[in-house]
Amino acid sequence: MPRILIVRPENESDDQPRSFIERARRAQIVRAAVETIAEVGFAKASFARIAARAGISAGLISYHFAGKDELIGQVAADIKEAMDRAIGERAAGAGSYLAALRAVIGGFVHYCAEHRAEMYALREIAANGGPVEQDDAVGQLAGMLRDGQEHGEFREFSPRLMALTLNAALEAVPRELYSRADTDAAAYADELASTFERAVRREGLRRRG
Amino acid sequence: MPRILIVRPENESDDQPRSFIERARRAQIVRAAVETIAEVGFAKASFARIAARAGISAGLISYHFAGKDELIGQVAADIKEAMDRAIGERAAGAGSYLAALRAVIGGFVHYCAEHRAEMYALREIAANGGPVEQDDAVGQLAGMLRDGQEHGEFREFSPRLMALTLNAALEAVPRELYSRADTDAAAYADELASTFERAVRREGLRRRG
Repeated sequence: MPRILIVRPENESDDQPRSFIERARRAQIVRAAVETIAEVGFAKASFARIAARAGISAGLISYHFAGKDELIGQVAADIKEAMDRAIGERAAGAGSYLAALRAVIGGFVHYCAEHRAEMYALREIAANGGPVEQDDAVGQLAGMLRDGQEHGEFREFSPRLMALTLNAALEAVPRELYSRADTDAAAYADELASTFERAVRREGLRRRG
Repeated sequence: MPRILIVRPENESDDQPRSFIERARRAQIVRAAVETIAEVGFAKASFARIAARAGISAGLISYHFAGKDELIGQVAADIKEAMDRAIGERAAGAGSYLAALRAVIGGFVHYCAEHRAEMYALREIAANGGPVEQDDAVGQLAGMLRDGQEHGEFREFSPRLMALTLNAALEAVPRELYSRADTDAAAYADELASTFERAVRREGLRRRG
């Protein structure tokens, strides 16, 4: 789930400085891991398979990552960071809380549609008890909704319960997109955004245009 | 998830007629099974434990149920039937599609709040690959939403995508109710009903009162 409106510098999660070569190599390995998990599942994604896909030796992966847990943790963190950045960039230009909410919802649906391997890998990792850092998506959505209320754009409601409902609606998106090939992502994004726009806006406020 | 607005006769799922005593005994065993699963989990809910809770012999369970699969299947079917009946009764008296939608949403939240053992058992059964019959909750909600559109109460939207969103929102209810003890079920029901009322009703339509 998106970490809303927070765009972090690219390497904030790294503890120590790494050379350009080192970072490029790690990124290459992570990319191969995503594709391998998406193709053969979490359980079968061994260093050997990932190395074969990357065209390097398994020993080189071991040089960069202490073990599967560290690699998988990096995979999950990278996927989430890229998703957050993409959605955050869409929302950052919004001129109102309502527009930001639409941008977040639309951004998430489009991101899912365009990054199937990443979303599938993330689900595989979570489903297999992998080291997925739990970001508090509900808490972050609730904060955004509360801000919109305080600025008078949104009606009165429980920010937590609305955030829970929105988060549940977003979590249902990937399965529908991937299991029904005829689903139109743009239409889904628009429907979902309209649903929550109507749910949160103050009575009497109408969207222009 | 509720099988919306369909209230079935009590014993429709039974293939052959059973005596009153036999049905009472089966209901007693099912009740003990629900409580046992809720207490010790699916894996540990053996005939021996269920029998102990019911105060009968394990052999008597075997007389009534061919095996754990049949018993668990009956448990899941009974829970769903009772839930559907409770929600259906609330919705049946509704004078409009909007009122029926509110009744279904409110009925589901209240049912979850008042039947923790059943909801927990149902989740345990599903999570452990037990024989839970897949009713098409999304399809049934979509049908109800489409009817409301055809009767001019609801605005234009994709019934399937709205039903997916509503179903996801309902599926998030039990965990929130059970994991946060301070959650007010009545407030949750009202918030959720208001969210979807606003999402589906036609522009210009306002709830009276």
